[in-house]
Amino acid sequence: MNQEMFTINNLWMMVATILVFIMHLGFASLEAGLTRAKNTVNILFKNTIIPAIGLLTYAFVGFNLMYPGDDFIGSFFGLTGVGISLPEGWNTFAYNEGYTFFTDFIFQAMFAATAATIVSGAVAERVKLGPFIFFSILYVGIIYPIVGMWKWGGGFLDTLTTPFYDFAGSTIVHSVGGWGALVGAYLLGPRIGKYTERGMSAIPGHNIPMATIGVFLLWFGWFGFNGGSVLTADPGTVSLVFVTTAIAGASGAFGALMASYLKFKTYDITMVLNGILAGLVGITAGADLMSVGESAIIGFIGGTLVVFAVVFFDRIKIDDPVGAISVHLIGGIWGTLAVGFFGDLAGMSQIWSQLIGIGVVGAFCFIASWLIFFTMKRTIGIRVDEKEEIEGLDINEHSMRAYPDFATKD
Amino acid sequence: MNQEMFTINNLWMMVATILVFIMHLGFASLEAGLTRAKNTVNILFKNTIIPAIGLLTYAFVGFNLMYPGDDFIGSFFGLTGVGISLPEGWNTFAYNEGYTFFTDFIFQAMFAATAATIVSGAVAERVKLGPFIFFSILYVGIIYPIVGMWKWGGGFLDTLTTPFYDFAGSTIVHSVGGWGALVGAYLLGPRIGKYTERGMSAIPGHNIPMATIGVFLLWFGWFGFNGGSVLTADPGTVSLVFVTTAIAGASGAFGALMASYLKFKTYDITMVLNGILAGLVGITAGADLMSVGESAIIGFIGGTLVVFAVVFFDRIKIDDPVGAISVHLIGGIWGTLAVGFFGDLAGMSQIWSQLIGIGVVGAFCFIASWLIFFTMKRTIGIRVDEKEEIEGLDINEHSMRAYPDFATKD
Amino acid sequence: MNQEMFTINNLWMMVATILVFIMHLGFASLEAGLTRAKNTVNILFKNTIIPAIGLLTYAFVGFNLMYPGDDFIGSFFGLTGVGISLPEGWNTFAYNEGYTFFTDFIFQAMFAATAATIVSGAVAERVKLGPFIFFSILYVGIIYPIVGMWKWGGGFLDTLTTPFYDFAGSTIVHSVGGWGALVGAYLLGPRIGKYTERGMSAIPGHNIPMATIGVFLLWFGWFGFNGGSVLTADPGTVSLVFVTTAIAGASGAFGALMASYLKFKTYDITMVLNGILAGLVGITAGADLMSVGESAIIGFIGGTLVVFAVVFFDRIKIDDPVGAISVHLIGGIWGTLAVGFFGDLAGMSQIWSQLIGIGVVGAFCFIASWLIFFTMKRTIGIRVDEKEEIEGLDINEHSMRAYPDFATKD
Repeated sequence: MNQEMFTINNLWMMVATILVFIMHLGFASLEAGLTRAKNTVNILFKNTIIPAIGLLTYAFVGFNLMYPGDDFIGSFFGLTGVGISLPEGWNTFAYNEGYTFFTDFIFQAMFAATAATIVSGAVAERVKLGPFIFFSILYVGIIYPIVGMWKWGGGFLDTLTTPFYDFAGSTIVHSVGGWGALVGAYLLGPRIGKYTERGMSAIPGHNIPMATIGVFLLWFGWFGFNGGSVLTADPGTVSLVFVTTAIAGASGAFGALMASYLKFKTYDITMVLNGILAGLVGITAGADLMSVGESAIIGFIGGTLVVFAVVFFDRIKIDDPVGAISVHLIGGIWGTLAVGFFGDLAGMSQIWSQLIGIGVVGAFCFIASWLIFFTMKRTIGIRVDEKEEIEGLDINEHSMRAYPDFATKD
Repeated sequence: MNQEMFTINNLWMMVATILVFIMHLGFASLEAGLTRAKNTVNILFKNTIIPAIGLLTYAFVGFNLMYPGDDFIGSFFGLTGVGISLPEGWNTFAYNEGYTFFTDFIFQAMFAATAATIVSGAVAERVKLGPFIFFSILYVGIIYPIVGMWKWGGGFLDTLTTPFYDFAGSTIVHSVGGWGALVGAYLLGPRIGKYTERGMSAIPGHNIPMATIGVFLLWFGWFGFNGGSVLTADPGTVSLVFVTTAIAGASGAFGALMASYLKFKTYDITMVLNGILAGLVGITAGADLMSVGESAIIGFIGGTLVVFAVVFFDRIKIDDPVGAISVHLIGGIWGTLAVGFFGDLAGMSQIWSQLIGIGVVGAFCFIASWLIFFTMKRTIGIRVDEKEEIEGLDINEHSMRAYPDFATKD
Repeated sequence: MNQEMFTINNLWMMVATILVFIMHLGFASLEAGLTRAKNTVNILFKNTIIPAIGLLTYAFVGFNLMYPGDDFIGSFFGLTGVGISLPEGWNTFAYNEGYTFFTDFIFQAMFAATAATIVSGAVAERVKLGPFIFFSILYVGIIYPIVGMWKWGGGFLDTLTTPFYDFAGSTIVHSVGGWGALVGAYLLGPRIGKYTERGMSAIPGHNIPMATIGVFLLWFGWFGFNGGSVLTADPGTVSLVFVTTAIAGASGAFGALMASYLKFKTYDITMVLNGILAGLVGITAGADLMSVGESAIIGFIGGTLVVFAVVFFDRIKIDDPVGAISVHLIGGIWGTLAVGFFGDLAGMSQIWSQLIGIGVVGAFCFIASWLIFFTMKRTIGIRVDEKEEIEGLDINEHSMRAYPDFATKD
């Protein structure tokens, strides 16, 4: 290691950081686009506040929870302190050959907020703002970093005989968000008019261009999300990760295109958009392990799964306006399992480790989300009242409209 | 060459790759913005699928067609095989001092899809989805890489006595797209209501903010498109290319502003937006050869030309909803010729070589596009029926609307 | 210094350049989103032309005015010549260890246009296009570079006993724009219907998603704006700047959220968006000097101030449709002062130097803006006529609408 290589590595990690940052705009655009115009300000408000929450809570406590160093009890929980304290040699390759302390912090902080952003989409159009922000603070500030530590902070999932493998977070990030989304959507119940006696009625998103912008920005940012997870600028590994990420997203589009065309006999752009995302979530756990062909298969299956998952959750009447549970939870589980089936680590013992990781993280996040949402539901309430839901959250919670100059249909 | 410099070079090429990637969002936004609300989902669908097609076909066959190494017959066609096979030392500077094999592949793959995206705009609002996707697969997967090989793969245009010069693809990328756009728009015929007995009627784009976002994203990405075409991070060359790219875009805006103001006596933002793009297309062939002043002249002329070209194509009743032929074909020809008139290579023999390149590529792409589109026209049909065109492609091909919550005028 | 480190540094500066470039899309989106649909084309037109003006005037004269080297008279004004002339060794680290001559030029050129873009928002919905463009040319081409020279070109603010400190331009960029915005908004007078006998009436922005996209893109670009101002890729400093920039933006959101909730009892997204920007403007002067905690405080105060500033300017009937004066002038003054109160340079003598800088720059920009706008007001006029303002600038100045397919309310 020398100063030149350290500077290159750190530069890539900083670029990756801002690529992950712009994913928050991607989520905001996607979720706003796939919901109704009367709730747009509300969704944008949530998705603007979430990265702010993520950055601040991660500085306050999250980073120390997630990377406790040697200061942890057992390998389930640890905390080095509160706030940011600079270690000796923080800005040299003595700290790490790939980044300074501050680069380390800011890259991880940008990741952290993703978990709550995923939840935001699933609970859209009916969740109360205050309780959702409270949930986000706890989920991003405490739940996510504890889970992250189990693998990336050297915790028990990293020290299994065959270590659980999750390169950039199919489970550690996406499923964590997905479980919160599932619990939130279930405890809130469906939006008024979604499931009636005459069956399920689609509630179409109000702005497909916004949704498309969102998915492209997410894909763009994913090159930093996965590419930055290499933790150096190593040419071979990062370029491999770029290729697997690109190919999985592309074949995710085709998987969803084919499945949705066969099922609905139409070219459904929202399925294709979610198929891209499911392909990306799917490759995330093993982006550094797969060949081009394997990436194409993983992405294709991810894109196919998302179509069936969307139908399934509608059948069991869990109303997820943007398909977040299908993309991030189902896609995340699939991607995590795929590490056992494809690529350099494939094998039975890896499959078991992957199942352990999926199960333990799932149980913890499910229970934690349930405790938070259920406690709030029984006390302050988590759902807006019927009148507010019908009129829209924008006018009721924010006293404004997203598009006041335009004539709307409702 | 050492590992540090190799890593820096490769890092820049990877960053350039994602800048080219985001150009696909630029095209999607621009084309959606400049067409009508009733066809928005259709355009977004095409422009989302095209990069997916580009990535997958380029992995399957395009890359091997474009860079056949020594395995080619004559210098018109060559193919090393199907799929991706990693060469020895793929991740070292033994492969190339500027990038790994995978970086090479992914940077070129991002370029490939551009050709079909250009066509998408010109055939918008009336082309059938299936045939367009079929055209895209052939054009991106086979036609584009064959042409690309002629110059960038070491083919006959690269081995002329005075080699044809096309730094980043005014001809190899933009004109290739432009010829397909011309043929497609011609064989489809104009949109209903565009040219009537009372003359030409403008069909305004439905969302100027989207179009503006598109052009800015394209300009943003162009720094990677041109800057990455240096193929290393060489400080002098890349920074020169940044300056010529920025200046040509800026003066393209002014060229179009002045020409359109003189012609139409109004400040036409769509002309300014297309002027920027024409300036950028214009500088692309010689972005590494020009001075600041020459870049300004090339961009200004490009921006001026686009205004006259748009008027010209309307006069001969070739209906190009977004001006793609004017920007990419006329701009591409201009930029390619400009290498003979300005900059380090200017001279008569270069002008001849540029004309040969323009002519040969044009003839090949024209014929290839004609064969594909014409065959489909005579068999499966390439144009939606009248009722569908009037109602909009969104509701007929996709069973949905882009903006279901808003009241539209038609 | 060696070639490897030079190449890394230059690469970062080029990446930072394009991040600053995309801020122009951020400004365009924000300003379009926060104004009415009938003036959208006009705003986008201005914000598209401004970076073009910035790039061309900076090449013609701005860069030479701002960095006159030793060729200046006194330390208030200097000019090395007109146009770009390449110095000896321009592409080596003999020019500068952080960048080539062309990187230097293009990074600074991207900054330059920012000043006029800030003004654009404050004068929106009523300024005549021609006079505004004329103002922009003078402001970007002459006023901004003269002020910039005082500090960054080695002028008198840089040679005070305790030098004035402005890391990335809270004063040199943002306040310069803010003063122009103040003078322009004042001399134009408020929009029709804004302040009536019955008090102030809010004129809501027509597209909150656009505004949100704008703020995220600005924040994204700010990592290049502040991070690039390090002028090398030094891992410690750039990563510190990333962290202070991220944290200040995040706490700016919370400052504005709390202040606006206490004041208006609602969750006002436009305040949160402007709060993020005020936090970012606030940290800009001392982004390399602050701890994480200090950044949080500076951002929080910036976000709080913006709420009170918006109310204040409405009270004195200065109509600023997008809050540009509050964000960039008040935020810029706050950030500049904060260098005296917090961080490595805090102290009384620094506070005095900061006050001198704020005062001198303010006086010069105020007078210069006044001279330009007032002269035009008395001659060619700066405000559109009443009929045009009521009908909208789009149809009158541009003969088109931004959203022709949609039914609007007015």
